[in-house]
Amino acid sequence: MIRVGVIGYGYWGPNLARNFAESRTCELAGVSDLNPDRLAVARKRHPAVKLVTQSAELLDDPQIDAIAISTPVSTHFELAMSALRKGKHVMVEKPLTASSDQARILIEEAERRKRVLMVDHTFIYTGAVRKVKEQVSGGELGEIYYFDSVRVNLGLFQHDVDVIWDLAVHDLSIFNYLFSERPVAISATGCGHIPGRKENTAYITLFFESSLIGHVHVNWLSPVKVRQTLIGGSRKMIVYDDMQLTEKVRVYDRGVTVSDKPESVYKVLVGYRMGDIWIPHLDSTEALQTEVNHFAECIDRRTRPDSDGQAGLEVVRYLEAATQSMKERGKPVELKRARAAA
Amino acid sequence: MIRVGVIGYGYWGPNLARNFAESRTCELAGVSDLNPDRLAVARKRHPAVKLVTQSAELLDDPQIDAIAISTPVSTHFELAMSALRKGKHVMVEKPLTASSDQARILIEEAERRKRVLMVDHTFIYTGAVRKVKEQVSGGELGEIYYFDSVRVNLGLFQHDVDVIWDLAVHDLSIFNYLFSERPVAISATGCGHIPGRKENTAYITLFFESSLIGHVHVNWLSPVKVRQTLIGGSRKMIVYDDMQLTEKVRVYDRGVTVSDKPESVYKVLVGYRMGDIWIPHLDSTEALQTEVNHFAECIDRRTRPDSDGQAGLEVVRYLEAATQSMKERGKPVELKRARAAA
Amino acid sequence: MIRVGVIGYGYWGPNLARNFAESRTCELAGVSDLNPDRLAVARKRHPAVKLVTQSAELLDDPQIDAIAISTPVSTHFELAMSALRKGKHVMVEKPLTASSDQARILIEEAERRKRVLMVDHTFIYTGAVRKVKEQVSGGELGEIYYFDSVRVNLGLFQHDVDVIWDLAVHDLSIFNYLFSERPVAISATGCGHIPGRKENTAYITLFFESSLIGHVHVNWLSPVKVRQTLIGGSRKMIVYDDMQLTEKVRVYDRGVTVSDKPESVYKVLVGYRMGDIWIPHLDSTEALQTEVNHFAECIDRRTRPDSDGQAGLEVVRYLEAATQSMKERGKPVELKRARAAA
Amino acid sequence: MIRVGVIGYGYWGPNLARNFAESRTCELAGVSDLNPDRLAVARKRHPAVKLVTQSAELLDDPQIDAIAISTPVSTHFELAMSALRKGKHVMVEKPLTASSDQARILIEEAERRKRVLMVDHTFIYTGAVRKVKEQVSGGELGEIYYFDSVRVNLGLFQHDVDVIWDLAVHDLSIFNYLFSERPVAISATGCGHIPGRKENTAYITLFFESSLIGHVHVNWLSPVKVRQTLIGGSRKMIVYDDMQLTEKVRVYDRGVTVSDKPESVYKVLVGYRMGDIWIPHLDSTEALQTEVNHFAECIDRRTRPDSDGQAGLEVVRYLEAATQSMKERGKPVELKRARAAA
Repeated sequence: MIRVGVIGYGYWGPNLARNFAESRTCELAGVSDLNPDRLAVARKRHPAVKLVTQSAELLDDPQIDAIAISTPVSTHFELAMSALRKGKHVMVEKPLTASSDQARILIEEAERRKRVLMVDHTFIYTGAVRKVKEQVSGGELGEIYYFDSVRVNLGLFQHDVDVIWDLAVHDLSIFNYLFSERPVAISATGCGHIPGRKENTAYITLFFESSLIGHVHVNWLSPVKVRQTLIGGSRKMIVYDDMQLTEKVRVYDRGVTVSDKPESVYKVLVGYRMGDIWIPHLDSTEALQTEVNHFAECIDRRTRPDSDGQAGLEVVRYLEAATQSMKERGKPVELKRARAAA
Repeated sequence: MIRVGVIGYGYWGPNLARNFAESRTCELAGVSDLNPDRLAVARKRHPAVKLVTQSAELLDDPQIDAIAISTPVSTHFELAMSALRKGKHVMVEKPLTASSDQARILIEEAERRKRVLMVDHTFIYTGAVRKVKEQVSGGELGEIYYFDSVRVNLGLFQHDVDVIWDLAVHDLSIFNYLFSERPVAISATGCGHIPGRKENTAYITLFFESSLIGHVHVNWLSPVKVRQTLIGGSRKMIVYDDMQLTEKVRVYDRGVTVSDKPESVYKVLVGYRMGDIWIPHLDSTEALQTEVNHFAECIDRRTRPDSDGQAGLEVVRYLEAATQSMKERGKPVELKRARAAA
Repeated sequence: MIRVGVIGYGYWGPNLARNFAESRTCELAGVSDLNPDRLAVARKRHPAVKLVTQSAELLDDPQIDAIAISTPVSTHFELAMSALRKGKHVMVEKPLTASSDQARILIEEAERRKRVLMVDHTFIYTGAVRKVKEQVSGGELGEIYYFDSVRVNLGLFQHDVDVIWDLAVHDLSIFNYLFSERPVAISATGCGHIPGRKENTAYITLFFESSLIGHVHVNWLSPVKVRQTLIGGSRKMIVYDDMQLTEKVRVYDRGVTVSDKPESVYKVLVGYRMGDIWIPHLDSTEALQTEVNHFAECIDRRTRPDSDGQAGLEVVRYLEAATQSMKERGKPVELKRARAAA
Repeated sequence: MIRVGVIGYGYWGPNLARNFAESRTCELAGVSDLNPDRLAVARKRHPAVKLVTQSAELLDDPQIDAIAISTPVSTHFELAMSALRKGKHVMVEKPLTASSDQARILIEEAERRKRVLMVDHTFIYTGAVRKVKEQVSGGELGEIYYFDSVRVNLGLFQHDVDVIWDLAVHDLSIFNYLFSERPVAISATGCGHIPGRKENTAYITLFFESSLIGHVHVNWLSPVKVRQTLIGGSRKMIVYDDMQLTEKVRVYDRGVTVSDKPESVYKVLVGYRMGDIWIPHLDSTEALQTEVNHFAECIDRRTRPDSDGQAGLEVVRYLEAATQSMKERGKPVELKRARAAA
C-alpha cells in the first residue's frame, strides 16, 4: 500500500482524498489545507487520518510515500519540488506547472531522484477516452482530418488562471494521449468580459504539418454545459460526448468518397458514405480510481505513468503558446520540437 | 400578384419555385435551367408554368416582374445585372455575389433603376431568429458578451465555393440581423482534406471594439449535424438550436454576479445566477414563405427588404476577409467601415 | 402506369395524391372531395388532374384503374365496395373499415373479383420498421418478451373515432407485421375528458399464449409528442423511436442472465448483460412512396400486398375488442382465432 | 442531534447511513448487517460508528433515538415493531410493509407510543416533485386529466418482490403526494419472463370517480432507463423526466380548447393551445438529506412526516390491489375508502 498525503482540500482535493482512501493500492495518510474550515470537512469524512494546516507536516512525514498536490497552479512547482526533494513520489493536479521551465525542472528532479512524477490529466483515465484511443490506435478511423472539442459551461471562474489554463488543458491532454502527431503552431483568440478578471472565453487552433487541424472552444459563460469532441477520419468518425450518462462514445461509419468521373456543373464530385453508428459499452470505473491505482503501480514498478511529467510539460507548452497568441489577436506561435520528446 | 421567374432549378431553386407558386402574393411565371433533366422535374411539379433552358427567355419576358436567381455563386452577378437592366426586381440566393465589388455595383444599379434587390438570407425569416431578435432588441440579454455558432454536417460539398462561402454566410447574416454592432476585424483558420477541393473545415473569429467576441465553426465533414448558436449576455443567455423540431430557442435566466467583497484564496469572486429556462412558442411558417411575401411587399411598397443589397454586401465583405485571413493562418483582416453604412 | 383516383382530400389525401403523382409506377388521374375549398387546394398542386366533388365520377371513370380512399372511417366500406364492384383496385386509409364484418365482406368481394385490396398501414413501409423486422425475423432478439408502444401527442382530435381507432391502429399493425404470434385476448382502459367527445387517452394490453405481453399507450392530450416502441428479447432489445430524425432504430446487446448458483439473501440470482448499442443506417425513402409502388406492383403481378385486406381485418378485430373492453373497465375480450388466417 | 441506527447495509442502507452521517440534525450512531462483508464496507466509510451483525444491539442501545430500516420487505414489520416497542422512532425503506394489515398495526403502535413512523418515499423529497406539487397545489394545471408514469430500466431484479412492489411504489407515492383525489379501483396486468421469478413487467391503471385516469408502467427488462411522468391538466401540462440532470420539470402552457360552433365534417371541434414551455430552476439538495432532516424535525416537534405511516399504508393497499388484479388478468379491484383517511 502506497501511503499518500494530499495537499489542498479545496475543490478537487476531496476527490483525490476519497479515491486514495477507497483504493486497494493506496492509503490516505494525511490531508493538509491552510483553511481550518476545509480541514473540518476533511475530518468528517476521514476521521482517522492525519489532518494538518501546514503541508510541511506531510512533506516531512517519513511514513508518507507520495504526495498529491491540489492547490492553486502558482504553488504547484514549489510544493512538487519540496516533495521530490524529500524523496516523495508526486502527483500534481493539472496543469502540471505555471510555466514550461518549471515543468522541465520538475522532470529533471524526478528523474535524478528516481521518483514518479505524474500529472492528473484525469480524462485520459476514463473508459470513454480509452475506448476512443482503442479505435484510433487500431487505425479504424483512417487518416485523421480534425479534432474539434467544445468544453463550455457556467463557471467555475478561477481566480488565478484563465479559461485556457483551466479547461483547455483537458482537451489538449486528451489530444496528445490519442494521437502521436504534435502541433507545429498554436493560435488562440479570447475575451474577458468581467472587469479585472482573466479571459473567460477562448478559441484555440492547432496547426500541424499534415492536413490535420485541431480546435478547442472553452468558455466559462455558457448557459449550457457542453463537453463534446468530434474526431473526423477518412474512414470513420467519432463523437465523444461526456455529458451523456453512459453513451459517451459514438463511432460513425461515415465519410466522403471522392469520385474522379467528370460530372456536370450541378453535380458534386464528392459523395457521402452514411453507414451505421456503433455505441460501445464503456468501462464505468471512476477515472480517478483508475488513476490512483496507476500511480501506485508506477511507484511499485518504477514505470512511467501515461500522464508523466513529459505529458504535463507538453500541455503546458501549448498553454503558454495559446496565451501568447491570445495577446496578439491570434497570431500563430510556433512550437519548437521538444528536446525531451526526441 | 408579382409574377416571378426562377433561374436555376438545382438544389435550392425547387424550394424557391414551390414557395412562389404557393404564395398568396406571388405567382410562379417561369423556370429556367440549362439542364433538361432538371426542367423535366420542374415540369412534373409545375406543369402550367413556362419552362425554358435559356434564362434570357425569362429575362426578356415582359410578363415577368421579378427574377429569383439560384445558380452557382460565380454567375450571380451577371444574371442579377441582366435582370436589373431589364427592369426586373431581383432576389439572389446567398451569398449575394462572389465579391464585394460586384455587390456594390448591383446595389447602385438597383438604386438607380429603383428596383428591389434582395438577398436570400433565409434564416433571418425564420420564427426562431425573429424570436431571438425580439429578445435582443428588447434588451432582455443585457450587454452582449459573445455569439458562438456551430454549423456542421456531412456534406453537401460544393464545387465552386469553400465551406465558409457555403455555410458561414448563414451565421454571419444572422449575426448582422440580430445585432447593430459590427466587427472591426475578422480572422479565420481552416483546412481542406480532399485533394483538389476547397476548405471543408473552418473557424472564424469576429473582433469588435467592445469586449464582444464572435465565432463561427463550419464543417462539411462532421458525422453529426449541428446547428447551434450560443448568445451570452450579462443578464440572460440564449441557445438557438435549429436541429430541434419545435423547441429551437431557449432563453436562460442565467449569468454571473461579480462580488466586490474580499474573499479567501480558495473562494472565487464571481458568483453564478442559475434561474429558470423559458422556451417560447415559435411561428412555424416556412421561412421562405415569409420571405417571398416580404419580397412582394417590398416591390409593392418600394421599401427595402430586411435582407437588402447592403445586407448582402456586408456578409460578402466578411467572407472575403475570412478567405484572406485563412490563407495567412488566421492573421486578422481589418474591416474598413463601409461607406454605404454611414 | 396505374391510373389512380383519390377520394377525399382532407388531412391525409394530399399525401396520397402527391405520392401517386410523383411515383414512377402510378399516375394521379383524379381527386374528389365534397368540399370545394379542398378541391381548390388540390387544383393549385395538381392543375392537370381531374378534380370533382362527386366520388362517383372517379368510380365510373373507365380510365381509372385504382381508387385510394382517404375519407372518414364510417364511409370506407361503402366507397371501397363501390370501387371493387366497378372493377377497381382499392387502397383504403387505416383503419380498413369501421367493423370486422365490413372488412370480411370487402375481402371476399376483392377475392371474387380478383382485385387488389390494400389497407394503408403506412408505418410498415418505413425503413425503420423494415429494419426492425429484419432483426426480428433473423432471430437476433431471441425469445420476444414484450412489445411496448407509446404514441401520444397534442391532437389531432378526430370527430368520428376515438384515440384507439385513430392511433393504436399504427402500433397494432406494426406488431402484426413484425411478429407471427397473435394475441388471444385484449383488454383496454381509457378516458375521455372533453364533454361529448370520445376517449382521448387509452391503454391497451395484448395477452398471448406464451409469456409475451403487448401494451400500447395512445393519447391525444400529451404536451409532448412521443412515438416510442420498446421490444424486449431474451438476447437483444430494440428501441424504435420515430421522433428521431435519422437514428430511429437502436439495437441493444443487452439482457439478463439467469444464474443457478445459490447466493446469499442480499444477492440477486439474475445478472445483467450490458453490451454495445448499434444504430443501423435506414432507408429514408418516404413510406408512402414505397407503399404506392408496392400497390402498383401488386396490381401488375396480382400478388397480395404486405398490408392486404386480411391484415386490415386483424387490426380492426383488435380495435373492436379494445373498444368493448374499454367499456367494461378493462375486462379482457377473448379473440377467436380468425378463420381466414387458418 | 438525533442519534440514528441503520439496520441493513445492502443496496440502499449506505445511502441512508451517509445522509445521517452528513446531516446537521442527525448523527449516525450505528449500523447493523447480518453480512460481515457489508459491515467491512461500512467500517471503511464510517470507522467511528458502532458496527454490529445483530440488529438487536442497535434496538437495545439506549443511546440510539431512532432506527432506519433498509432490509428486505418481508422483515420490515418485525423490525419496525421491535424498534417501536423499544421506544425508538422509525424510518422504513419503501414499501412500508409487506401487507396493509402490518402497516395498520405499525401505525397504531406508533400512535400509542407517540413515536414518529416514517416511510422512505424518497421521491417526494426531491426538488423536482416539490416543484410539481407547487404547480398542482397552486391550481396552475386546472382540472387534472391524467397521470402517466413510466419507470423502466434493466434490473435490479429483486428476489423477494415483483416489479410493482419494487418500482411502482415510487409512482404511487408521488401520485398521492401531488394530488388529493384517491383511486376507487386499481387494475394491473403483468408478466414474468424469467422462470421461477416474479413479474418483471407490469402495467397499472388507477380508476377514479372523476374523469381522472392514472397509469404506471414498470419494467425491469428495458434496455433503456426511462423515468418519465406526464401530467395532463385542462390549463397546463407537466412532464417530469427524472433522467434529466437538471431540467427535470417542464411546464407546458398547452391544452385543448373546445369550440361550440358547428363545423364541417372535415373540421374538428377541438382546437389546440400551443404556448410556451417553462423549465423552473430546482432545488438540487439530495432528497435523502432533505428527508433525514425532516425526520429529525418531526421527532423534535412531534409532528407527522409528509410520508407518515398512513402514506405508507395507502401505497401498500394499492400494491396489494394491483397484485390481486394482476393474478386475474387485469380485473379491477375496488378500493374501500380507508377509515384513517376519513
